[in-house]
Formats: sequence, C-alpha cells, structure tokens
Amino acid sequence: MKEEEFSVPGFLAAGISAGIKSNGKPDLALIFSKRPAKVAGVFTKNSFRAAPVQISEERVKGGIAQAIVTNSGNANACTGERGKADARAIAEKLARELKIDERMILIASTGVIGHPLPVSIIERRLPDLVRDLSPSGLMRAELAMMTTDRWPKIAYRKLLIGGKEVTMCGLAKGAGMIQPQMATMLAYILTDLNIGEKELHSLFRYAVDRSFNSISVDGCMSTNDMVVIMANGIAGNKPPALNSRDYRLLRASFLSLMEGLAKEIVRDGEGATKVLEIVVEGAATVQEAKKVAYAVGNANLVKAAFFGQDPNWGRIISAVGSLGLPLEGEKVRLYLEDECIFASGMGQIQREERLREIMESNEIRVGIYLGRGQKSWRIFASDLTFDYVRINSHYRT
Amino acid sequence: MKEEEFSVPGFLAAGISAGIKSNGKPDLALIFSKRPAKVAGVFTKNSFRAAPVQISEERVKGGIAQAIVTNSGNANACTGERGKADARAIAEKLARELKIDERMILIASTGVIGHPLPVSIIERRLPDLVRDLSPSGLMRAELAMMTTDRWPKIAYRKLLIGGKEVTMCGLAKGAGMIQPQMATMLAYILTDLNIGEKELHSLFRYAVDRSFNSISVDGCMSTNDMVVIMANGIAGNKPPALNSRDYRLLRASFLSLMEGLAKEIVRDGEGATKVLEIVVEGAATVQEAKKVAYAVGNANLVKAAFFGQDPNWGRIISAVGSLGLPLEGEKVRLYLEDECIFASGMGQIQREERLREIMESNEIRVGIYLGRGQKSWRIFASDLTFDYVRINSHYRT
Repeated sequence: MKEEEFSVPGFLAAGISAGIKSNGKPDLALIFSKRPAKVAGVFTKNSFRAAPVQISEERVKGGIAQAIVTNSGNANACTGERGKADARAIAEKLARELKIDERMILIASTGVIGHPLPVSIIERRLPDLVRDLSPSGLMRAELAMMTTDRWPKIAYRKLLIGGKEVTMCGLAKGAGMIQPQMATMLAYILTDLNIGEKELHSLFRYAVDRSFNSISVDGCMSTNDMVVIMANGIAGNKPPALNSRDYRLLRASFLSLMEGLAKEIVRDGEGATKVLEIVVEGAATVQEAKKVAYAVGNANLVKAAFFGQDPNWGRIISAVGSLGLPLEGEKVRLYLEDECIFASGMGQIQREERLREIMESNEIRVGIYLGRGQKSWRIFASDLTFDYVRINSHYRT
Repeated sequence: MKEEEFSVPGFLAAGISAGIKSNGKPDLALIFSKRPAKVAGVFTKNSFRAAPVQISEERVKGGIAQAIVTNSGNANACTGERGKADARAIAEKLARELKIDERMILIASTGVIGHPLPVSIIERRLPDLVRDLSPSGLMRAELAMMTTDRWPKIAYRKLLIGGKEVTMCGLAKGAGMIQPQMATMLAYILTDLNIGEKELHSLFRYAVDRSFNSISVDGCMSTNDMVVIMANGIAGNKPPALNSRDYRLLRASFLSLMEGLAKEIVRDGEGATKVLEIVVEGAATVQEAKKVAYAVGNANLVKAAFFGQDPNWGRIISAVGSLGLPLEGEKVRLYLEDECIFASGMGQIQREERLREIMESNEIRVGIYLGRGQKSWRIFASDLTFDYVRINSHYRT
C-alpha cells in the first residue's frame, strides 16, 4: 500500500522533524479530525503517569476530541509540575493554530524519562506542523511517533456497515525500549464510524483487553502508555446497537486490526527473535487464564529457552505451577503448536523432526490446558535474547 | 576454616559420587542426627511440587526427623506416581541401613525435571553412603548437593545460650539454574540447640521470610525448593521461652546465618555480576514493601541497567509505579547507597564520580522511600546479564 492510501475520511495528519531528537529524525506528529470525534482511551496505570498522560486521561473523560499531538524523543515523565505546565502550553498554542477549543486536544509524549520537554522548540514548529496536515499524512505521523521501533506499525481496514463504507486505521509505536529510558507504547485508532458513546466504549474496551493489554515483552510497565480511539461519524452509517449484528462485526474488525498492531509491537520488541502466542484454556476464570498466560510469558527461563530453540517443557510447567493453583497434574496438558509435550503429569515423547521445525520458526503457539473449567485467554510474548540485554544494559565494552 | 571444623554436635554427614551425574561429580548426600531432632520446613508452593518435596512436607508435619538424603543431578519432578514410589523406596532402603523408622527420613532432589530417578543406582550405593557418615562430613554433603553452583555455601556459628555453647550450621545450594531444566534452592540448617517446637517454628519462619524468601535471581519459582531446620537438643541448654532475651538472640543469629547463605545464592545466581540489596521503607504495610521490592528486583529493565552500570532511575521509578499504588510523587525518594537520585518528583543531580564508583561495585544498596507509612522490607536480587541468557538459552552456535 502506498502512503497516500492510508487515509480515513475526515482525518488529516502530519509529521515533521522539530529538532527534539538529536539525530534529526521526525519527532512531532499531529492527527486532526475536521469534525469533533467521539473518543475513548486506555492509559497506563503506573503511579508515575507522565504529565501528558494525566492531561489526556482527564480530557478523554469529556467524550469528545478533535486532535492528538505527539512528540517522540522525550517522555515528559517525572518532570513534576513543570511537565504539566509544558504540556498545557503546547496544547494551548496548538489550539490557537487549529482554531479549536484547547480541551479538544490530546497530548502524548514518548522518549527519555526525566528531562524537561523542549517547549520553545516545539512551539516554534507548531505552525509548520499544522501546515503539513493532509489526508494522506498518517504514515508521516506514524514515522514521527517512532523512537527506536525498527519499522512503522499501521493497520487499515474498510467494511460495510448498514450499506455505508466504514474505514478504520490504527497507528502504533512499539515496546521497543531500545535506547535506555525510553517510554513505550502509544496507539491511535481512527475511524469515520458513526457510533454511540456507550457502544464505542464497550467495543474499544473489549478489543484493547484482547490486543494491547495482552502483550508482554518484558513485563515492565511504562509511564507513558496510552491507546486512544477517535470516531468522527463521517461515514454516516446508522449507529449500531449494542450487541447487534453490525456491532459484533465491527467489534471483530477492530479487534483483528488492533491484534495485528499489538503483535507487531511484540515482533519488534527489544531484541526479540520470536513471537510466542500463549493460549491458556480450561481455566476456572478468565482472570486465572490471564495470570497463567503472563506467568509463562514473563518467565525469563521460558523466554530464554525459546530463544535457544530448546523445547523445555519443565520450565513452562514450573511457570504454570508458580501461581500455586490447585491443579490436578494429570489433567494439565502442554502443546507446542500441534505437538503435545506434557500430559498425564509427565513429559511426552515427541516427533523430534516436527519439534525441531516448530522451535525454529518465528511464531510459536504455546498451548496450555489447565483442566479446571471452560475459560481461556491468549497473549503474545517475545523471547529473551542477548540483544535484549545488550540494548538494555547500554553495555560498555 | 578447614573441612573438619564444620561440625555440629550429634550430627554426622556424608557425600559420595553415586553415578547419577554423568560427569562423575558427587551427587548423593546424607545428613544424620544421632538423636531424633525437632524439625521445621518451608517448601515450594509450586503446583507441580516434586515427589520428594511432597513426601518431606508431609513428614515434617510430624515435628521430628533424623536424616535428610539428597540427590543432585535429577529433580524427580513431573515424574508422576512413579516419582513418589521411587522416593519412598530410597527412604525405606536407607531406613534399614540406618536402623531407624522410615518416617524419620526426609528426602530431597535437585537437577533435571521430568526424568525418572535412577533408583537402582542410588539404592546400590546407600550402604557406602552410610559408611561415609562422619562428624566432619558436612562439606562433603554440601558438595554432593551442588548442581552447577560455582562454589559451596556453608555458614557456621557458635553462641552461648544459658551458659551452654550452641552450634548452628547452614548448608545451601543455589539458584544456579545454570544447566537447562535444573531445579533450584535447597537449604538445611542444623543445630544442637535445645528448643520447644513452637519456638523453633516461630524463629525459623521469621528467619526464612527475611532470608531465603527474600531473594530473587529471575523471579522463577522452582518445583523443588525446600528449606529445613533440624535441632537435636544435644547442647543441653534450657529451652528459650518465646520472645525471651535468649530467643531474640537466637533469632538474630539464625537470621544472620541464613541471610548470609541467601545472599550467597544470589551472588552465585545465573550469570550474576552484582548483588542488589533492595530496601523499601516508608510503606503502608509490610506486604506493600515486599511487593515494591520484588517489582524492582524482578524488573528486567532495572536488572539489565545495573549490569551495564547505568544509574537509570527512570526504570526504577517506573517499576515502583507499576503496582499502581496511590503514591504521592513528591514524597518518593530513591537512593543508590548514600546518593539520592530521585526526590520531589524529579531526578536529582549527583556527584558523578561517586555515582560511578557505586555503579562499579559488586554490591549495591538500592533505597526506596515510599512516604506512605512506617513499614519496610529488604530483598537481595541479581542483575540480568549476557551470561544469564547464554546459560538459559542453551545457545546453539
């Protein structure tokens, strides 16, 4: 797909090099909806939420937004009261440029923690940023959100809802904390869908939980994570009722779009060589399934074994057992793709050739059956590699 | 101290090469108290507790034991019903050799998960093991418990209780899961102390919580962990009353002995180059202090930064905040040794020279003040290094 083809009716976008990053790469992005859009968001729960996260979270509660301005290269986190004042100053100035109410502007930052935002540099370039706005600017915006992501992450989809064409586009920056002190995930979902507030929230929450909230590179939580959806209604479709056929179709589409982006974040995770799809089934509750999935996906011993292409079921079982659930060992089963490697309380004999083939691939499905009930959950996790340590130890040779 | 000097009145010990390990290193250890000893134990909470752990946990409930037999090289974990029968068979045979009740024997295993124990090899060598028993055999027993530990871990202390000399000795094997599928920590504390059952339990629980239960190499829980104390009463001291002066003196001594061993386990942790002493103060509850300490000590980004000698307070703050506690950012302070690196919601300017000196040392105290109350907790954690990944990925070049 060409750059121009990523466009969503009613949305303009821009991305420029403002000089926040010392290497001259794009670092200032703007997304603008011609019409006020319904908005919903999910924000990091970290006690040290960055200033822009605090401001945006408050504004999203109003239910309507029209613009998102994002800078990379500086997280504006742990910057005290000054950090909030800086973020507000930028939004104010931008509001004048865009001729909209300041409260219609969300703000996001990603980059180094603990350094004051270079406000004057950013303010000086806001007029250029606004001039750069165009219907085909989404890829430029995406590029300006990246820190040390290895590739841009954009997903795009069209579908028919009540006879009207609806477009959805997602932009994400990854959990690539590839330089020290980088803060991590940002994702924006833009759509011209016409939808009620309640339905938007419900659909969004459902999809976020199963996509961006179901990934792990290293189990470390950022101060700057934020996922926002904006729906400007320009498609003119009849708003779908909660749980109607259209609603379910939309929910599935948004989920698949966001799942794709979330998986890209893991694939581009720090030093990652493999994406593990960890599926827990037969749990007593969804919460239990989730906990087991993360216990396995965050276990360094498991992650290092996959890097080494070692089908080490002992470590997976040990991680499954680490929550102390009253499991009946005989009922628990482990699978790597279609190969059962543990059942009846013991390791199973495998087809060596098939197992090697599985371990060598870049995507591996780890199936865990608990034998306690009907609930399930799925997460994506990366492996633990030399490059992860190199990147994050900032190793001095 | 010479090998002969590690001895505790009334205890005999032995360690031989039985042939469980393919490299011919010592792999079978026995500790024997001439007199039935009061016993207390703490066992892994993993749902897939190994067969010997299940058996020993049950036997410790009886409150009295006389021997511990340990094999290294095979964890006897995830071996189903056969695993339990194997462990019992060894204990039965040993009971006949030692001429004591089988239920007086605890059994422990450490090594590869998921392989049946080579019972006949072990049984055949039990008479030799018993013949090898001697008052100076504790170091030999320790060596036979090691898997891929880089050095033996023995601690030894004498003190006067009510005019009588009391001896305590601790033997531990480490969290060195240095070969794939190794199961981890074992520690035995032997003493000739005369003490009541209630007092022994209370003192032991206190010391275990603050030592072996306050360490982390990678946050992964083993199927085979077990810590046991045996007190045979031979010192003949008047049993100390709960919370008496003698009791408190003993508790402090046991704690310092066990703390030393626990720290050795971290120092010898997989690939570790540094021991981080993470001290959380000003917490609302002990539980909260503990959770924050582990959130920091298990955070890969923090651990990798220490390996790289990078004083990255942003990652520590981010880990502290990851629990979502309602922290007042202005009250939180971070210290590396005596250097304050974060206060009043912002990074603090440091004496560069002093900070470099701190980051280069092998033991670093990470102080975290939460400003929420009076409670505190302390753990020891290792850093995350290339060697950790190499060791655990079993990397194929």
